[in-house]
Amino acid sequence: MWGHLDAKKLPEGYPQFFARGEGGHVWDVDGRRYVDLMCSWGPIVLGHHDPAVDAAARKQAEMGDCLNGPGPVLVELAERLVDRIPAADWAMFQKNGTDATTACVTIARAATGRSTILMARGSYHGAAPWCTPVPAGTTEADRAHQLRFEYNDVASLEAAAAAVGDDLAAILVTGFRHDNIVDQELPTPEFAQAARAICDRKGAALIVDDVRAGFRLHAGGSWETVGVRPDLSAWSKAIANGHTLAAVTGRDSLRDAATRIFVTGSFWCSSVAMAAAIATLEELERRDVVGHIAALGQRLRDGLAERARGANVGLRQSGPVSMPLFLFDGDTDFAIGRAFCQATLEEGAFLHPRHNMFLCAAHTEADIDAVLAASEAGFAAIKGLR
Amino acid sequence: MWGHLDAKKLPEGYPQFFARGEGGHVWDVDGRRYVDLMCSWGPIVLGHHDPAVDAAARKQAEMGDCLNGPGPVLVELAERLVDRIPAADWAMFQKNGTDATTACVTIARAATGRSTILMARGSYHGAAPWCTPVPAGTTEADRAHQLRFEYNDVASLEAAAAAVGDDLAAILVTGFRHDNIVDQELPTPEFAQAARAICDRKGAALIVDDVRAGFRLHAGGSWETVGVRPDLSAWSKAIANGHTLAAVTGRDSLRDAATRIFVTGSFWCSSVAMAAAIATLEELERRDVVGHIAALGQRLRDGLAERARGANVGLRQSGPVSMPLFLFDGDTDFAIGRAFCQATLEEGAFLHPRHNMFLCAAHTEADIDAVLAASEAGFAAIKGLR
Repeated sequence: MWGHLDAKKLPEGYPQFFARGEGGHVWDVDGRRYVDLMCSWGPIVLGHHDPAVDAAARKQAEMGDCLNGPGPVLVELAERLVDRIPAADWAMFQKNGTDATTACVTIARAATGRSTILMARGSYHGAAPWCTPVPAGTTEADRAHQLRFEYNDVASLEAAAAAVGDDLAAILVTGFRHDNIVDQELPTPEFAQAARAICDRKGAALIVDDVRAGFRLHAGGSWETVGVRPDLSAWSKAIANGHTLAAVTGRDSLRDAATRIFVTGSFWCSSVAMAAAIATLEELERRDVVGHIAALGQRLRDGLAERARGANVGLRQSGPVSMPLFLFDGDTDFAIGRAFCQATLEEGAFLHPRHNMFLCAAHTEADIDAVLAASEAGFAAIKGLR
Repeated sequence: MWGHLDAKKLPEGYPQFFARGEGGHVWDVDGRRYVDLMCSWGPIVLGHHDPAVDAAARKQAEMGDCLNGPGPVLVELAERLVDRIPAADWAMFQKNGTDATTACVTIARAATGRSTILMARGSYHGAAPWCTPVPAGTTEADRAHQLRFEYNDVASLEAAAAAVGDDLAAILVTGFRHDNIVDQELPTPEFAQAARAICDRKGAALIVDDVRAGFRLHAGGSWETVGVRPDLSAWSKAIANGHTLAAVTGRDSLRDAATRIFVTGSFWCSSVAMAAAIATLEELERRDVVGHIAALGQRLRDGLAERARGANVGLRQSGPVSMPLFLFDGDTDFAIGRAFCQATLEEGAFLHPRHNMFLCAAHTEADIDAVLAASEAGFAAIKGLR
């Protein structure tokens, strides 16, 4: 196994192979059923086998998927994104989140004729050589023309922008701070406004990487929550409820540059994933999924906090409640987190000890209560470890 | 529109949007039906809506697609590839051909601790910044540590390898020469053997990019036709008959490096495309597709050659007959090719004036004869242009 789905990175007992999903639950190949708080690491935003998405995908598959050009659904989906996302005047589609972030950077460089990209230290923007967090097999040149700042730190961002001088092509920033193994942070309005102001002043592009957070925080893009609109946005994961799709949306000022670059892929215009995305966007709106998962996330956070207090455990929960992350105080080697998750898994709740989790529309209060009940085994298991 | 599916790059009258495909035919959104010689630019190798692949995909979709980890089909597919491809000891999966070629380069660099990649001048290896044929939005650094040689030119390859000195990580080469707008060339045994010998001598990896040619020339990989085995191979397009999938296969000597690099994607382990790939590989074998499309390709080549002679036109047909390319002598501005294809399109045959085409298992002798009949309108249309 390779990549983020490698179960070796999880506590012992976590399954590597899965058989099926249904709603907010998932089954491993040994037939064990879990309340699924990973949601396939983000893509499942409505629930496994959402009937509306399944029906749309099946119907499109009966017509055509990968043809000599796109189907009409490409236009329909682009129009829906442009309607729904205030910062979007156009859209183009890819297959991986990495395709989308890479295209954003390329478009920004083409538009500005400059090279340097400012990125927050520790942020994940994909797994291509220019952004993979593991340098094995990459070269220094892959990371040329990049400068780092601290997320939510205006002074650090200003200093980095000043250091770049005239070569600033873009500021690339995640929808919120969801770095591996550190407490999550929503963007502060001051930070978002500073990023916007620097890009305006320098004629650079503000890129929000909404691959992970997109469609869970706000229907129009994560930075709508702080009232700041990017020039380019990268989307994937939840956009088609598990179907393989990514997208870039942008402002008119970047349209020409988006036309001049050459990016493509054999399956980028396939219709089934786009039909699934149209159904997903419809259901997200119709069912107020953002509100639903926020309410359930709050229930989970409150329930875990109460149990942690009862157990006298320092449990830090951070970031948006619909994308929960919890870390234990003083758990430098993750022994506590691992033992907690391992015990909770045995009780039927699939949690992650270090990575943010995801809620979906199919989760119910009963599912959250089942997770909380399972977590009691977790709190019991870590008693001797503190 | 963007990328290779942009109809602006084709003669006027070519449709941009498609409604459906069936067997060897495709319909545009205006209801016009064509014999499809592009096969979705390669992915369709059995035919549109192949019943065996459709059934396998539907069955897997009813269970699960994108879950918290792969399904059992990942193991089954990897084992099939390793069984079928003599140079494969292991496999890993991605979503774009570019993902596969990028992973091969990264693995080679990780394995050797070196940087330089030798690539043939004009070869297409994908659309990431390091390999896109259009430099807009990329930087010089994206193409650092690359050196070029001429395909099928042993002296040029030897000279490039000598110029690299001790830093050779890999030779990256397409299954055959299928560059845009130039006559295609199958690899000569001398060239393939020289590439193999240089890699062996220098401890570098030989990478065959079989994204475009894979599964059409030889079941075990395109360079099996010249008896040379690569260390790494990149696959995509035809591997799942239109479902979104790519793969890297490699030798045991590269297994550790493949494990150390970090490449991943949200949908790389999704099961539906893998189930489709298993069915595709089964059908390819069961129906001797390589032999079928070679026979039909020969029928097309002979028929076009005969008509070209009759019309006294210099028509160059090159490369493997199952992936036909034709170019007209002296057609420097493509006026002849465009007029020919435009007229042939109106008669119901979808050809490409500059890019290689693709045959599939669903094509019949009657389809080829229909293309040949349609081509007579093409030959008539170019009469005044020569």
